[in-house]
Amino acid sequence: MNELVLLVVFLCVLVEDVVMFKSDPVLPHLDDVWWGPNELKMHNDTSIRPFRIHFHHDMIQDLRYRLLNHRPFTPPLEGVGFDYGFNTDYLHSWVDYWANHYNFREREHHLNQFPQFLTNIQGLDIHFLWVKPRVPPHVKVVPLLFLHGFPGSVVELFKAIRLLTTYSEDRDFAIEVIAPSLPGYAFSDAAIRPGLGASEMGVVFKNLMHRLGFDKFYIQGGDWGSYIGMSMATIYPKEILGYHTNLATAITLSAFGQYLIGAIHPPLVMSTAVMDRVYPITKYFVWLMTELGYMHIQSNKPDTVGVAMADSPAGLLAYIFQLFSSASRRKYVYRADGGLDDLYTRDELLDNLMMYWVTNSFTTACRIYAETENIRNLYLGIMGHPTPVPTWAIWAKDEITYLSNSMLKTKYTNLIHSTVLQGQGHFLAFEAPDILVKDVFKAIDAFRKWHKKH
Amino acid sequence: MNELVLLVVFLCVLVEDVVMFKSDPVLPHLDDVWWGPNELKMHNDTSIRPFRIHFHHDMIQDLRYRLLNHRPFTPPLEGVGFDYGFNTDYLHSWVDYWANHYNFREREHHLNQFPQFLTNIQGLDIHFLWVKPRVPPHVKVVPLLFLHGFPGSVVELFKAIRLLTTYSEDRDFAIEVIAPSLPGYAFSDAAIRPGLGASEMGVVFKNLMHRLGFDKFYIQGGDWGSYIGMSMATIYPKEILGYHTNLATAITLSAFGQYLIGAIHPPLVMSTAVMDRVYPITKYFVWLMTELGYMHIQSNKPDTVGVAMADSPAGLLAYIFQLFSSASRRKYVYRADGGLDDLYTRDELLDNLMMYWVTNSFTTACRIYAETENIRNLYLGIMGHPTPVPTWAIWAKDEITYLSNSMLKTKYTNLIHSTVLQGQGHFLAFEAPDILVKDVFKAIDAFRKWHKKH
Repeated sequence: MNELVLLVVFLCVLVEDVVMFKSDPVLPHLDDVWWGPNELKMHNDTSIRPFRIHFHHDMIQDLRYRLLNHRPFTPPLEGVGFDYGFNTDYLHSWVDYWANHYNFREREHHLNQFPQFLTNIQGLDIHFLWVKPRVPPHVKVVPLLFLHGFPGSVVELFKAIRLLTTYSEDRDFAIEVIAPSLPGYAFSDAAIRPGLGASEMGVVFKNLMHRLGFDKFYIQGGDWGSYIGMSMATIYPKEILGYHTNLATAITLSAFGQYLIGAIHPPLVMSTAVMDRVYPITKYFVWLMTELGYMHIQSNKPDTVGVAMADSPAGLLAYIFQLFSSASRRKYVYRADGGLDDLYTRDELLDNLMMYWVTNSFTTACRIYAETENIRNLYLGIMGHPTPVPTWAIWAKDEITYLSNSMLKTKYTNLIHSTVLQGQGHFLAFEAPDILVKDVFKAIDAFRKWHKKH
Repeated sequence: MNELVLLVVFLCVLVEDVVMFKSDPVLPHLDDVWWGPNELKMHNDTSIRPFRIHFHHDMIQDLRYRLLNHRPFTPPLEGVGFDYGFNTDYLHSWVDYWANHYNFREREHHLNQFPQFLTNIQGLDIHFLWVKPRVPPHVKVVPLLFLHGFPGSVVELFKAIRLLTTYSEDRDFAIEVIAPSLPGYAFSDAAIRPGLGASEMGVVFKNLMHRLGFDKFYIQGGDWGSYIGMSMATIYPKEILGYHTNLATAITLSAFGQYLIGAIHPPLVMSTAVMDRVYPITKYFVWLMTELGYMHIQSNKPDTVGVAMADSPAGLLAYIFQLFSSASRRKYVYRADGGLDDLYTRDELLDNLMMYWVTNSFTTACRIYAETENIRNLYLGIMGHPTPVPTWAIWAKDEITYLSNSMLKTKYTNLIHSTVLQGQGHFLAFEAPDILVKDVFKAIDAFRKWHKKH
């Protein structure tokens, strides 16, 4: 019960802050900050340039050398799984695969399967995929901003993009996908000055969509992509036609109050079929604390931890793949192989890793934590501000949290639906693109009907 | 005030646990667990073997190659100090110094300046310095177990050991120092199975001292050395003659109660001259949260973060030296150079780093966090159990915490004295050996007088 008391007060504290924000009827506002070098301002290039990924010969040679000459791995403690982190008994085979079996040229080709572009927004070259469906003339094509998170990249969205942009006659619309690399990720430039958090990235992506000619559009996001989408739906309610997310958050007075009541007796606030996802509260919080050390250090000292990750491909692999393990299934922490091969192919996991390695962008990618999980961002007041944008949530069984519709409606006043899955994990687009895409089509169909009524 | 409310409850929770433990009059007990390979049990070698550090030619070549071929560092954000971690503008000169100016052979000689030994305790070869003073026959020589922490090593104790073992005629005793490398650190073996936390290391060191012929002895410790010393003073009150520490902790009902009262009005519980070290409570807790990300990830996933640190000397340097910066002075976080050159020589910082690099022991060293900061350790009940061992604290101005004598006496019923410094930081033996050693001599003199009376 100790933890319950602790939680009650913790929630009261947050709730007080949220009430403070909620009492402010003015929409949060963010400026168009210039994040790149100041000299670029003078000759602002607004062109949209085609882009292709190239694996330089020297980069491959260097990477293979580093992998094959890694220093000895520390053996895991007897009988452990992934409890202490990546189990090095299983690291050897990964390093061997990357160095000796990953087909760099073939994968390079694979990574270039979609049209890619760069365009400069607020001083930063933003990398994005722009994939249009082939449709008959009468079919309405709607734009979807499709957002990845950490430690992912556009690679985790590939299979979903292919499905999303495949036209089917049984729908009266088709989707064109715009999937950018977040600033600081992969081939998108990183900010050169402090302050580019997840909400500020929302400004960048709104400007990106305007640049491409889309005044209004839909959003899908998980992980940080979900946070950015939430921010955009809050700041630009008239431009976002609908928000679909596989990690819906609602940090509001009422949502916390409900969660709190559930701490005493979960069935009071959610179905018994799902309550084990976030209750008992003690077990859930201990699990969160045990898994979120990476989040803590990245929100404190991204530049420190990044030096080694830039230098060591084996280390980067262990760091990123351990997160793919723990966020995919909670039970994988007990497995010595982390369960990685159960859900993903080695090639696709390494494709995603290459986006970090090739561009040496781990540090700048980590900075989103430091730039978002701070007091400044809290005082922006975006998290607790309600949005009227029609919203559709989908919940994987092993997602890191779960909120009931009643909780979500305190933030998303026009919540259309929540799909509750009995399986799958945090990287839904990567693990189960068919399930995600089917849900997105349903959601956009519902959003379109909703707009016709309103 | 929000954070205050939060803290109050947090403290009540801890306090409740502590009361539970305090009500148990039985001394906590720890078994002599076998931490090494089981096959060693059959032919248990109890010999004490001389040891010297050797920098192999191949190791030096490999290290220099890795340093000179590090991948490009991510530039720091404009205008930052060490806020986001090690500022890479200053990393180049460190990497250059290590690769091109650090004199490996000279430093190897330096690291071997004291007699060193290995002996097997509970299955682990434990590395230790054993330094005896030259004294006239009539002078009593007393043994001092001198314990380092993370990210330190025996290297941080060198200057203090030299001073501690220098006999002076104005004292009626002299000190011989036993300074072990903690299990898993440098040349001490790491446990091969889970469970070797800081308190369990206390058992290893009690057995080490017995092996060397010391039934009773004094202890000095900072950082983890302080925790281990606290555990030993609690579990073995009859064997520890006195406990001197530069990081005294007292996790008891009454100490927390006092700290809580101080949150409302600090002068109620401590002198106005020192209260800015832990109050205002909000500022202090935000600072702690901002600096302790490394502790969180090391207590969760040491094996994950360790892979890259083993592989990248530049990364290991950034990680460990950032901690030397932030724990030495709170204000150094605002400096682009981290203030490192102000307090330490480059050679001595690198000597300490070599203890991690040469032995590839970063991962096993980090595991002390995972093995101590957990529920099992909490339920051992050592932290809240009072000890009658005479205790002497010294407080550097920038130590990570401060407790008043009144707080400390709730744990150390025979607290003799606290020395309060107006300068210095967490690595007191490393930064100010003269100040530490003078205080240790005073303390042992007082402990000896105390024993004569009792």
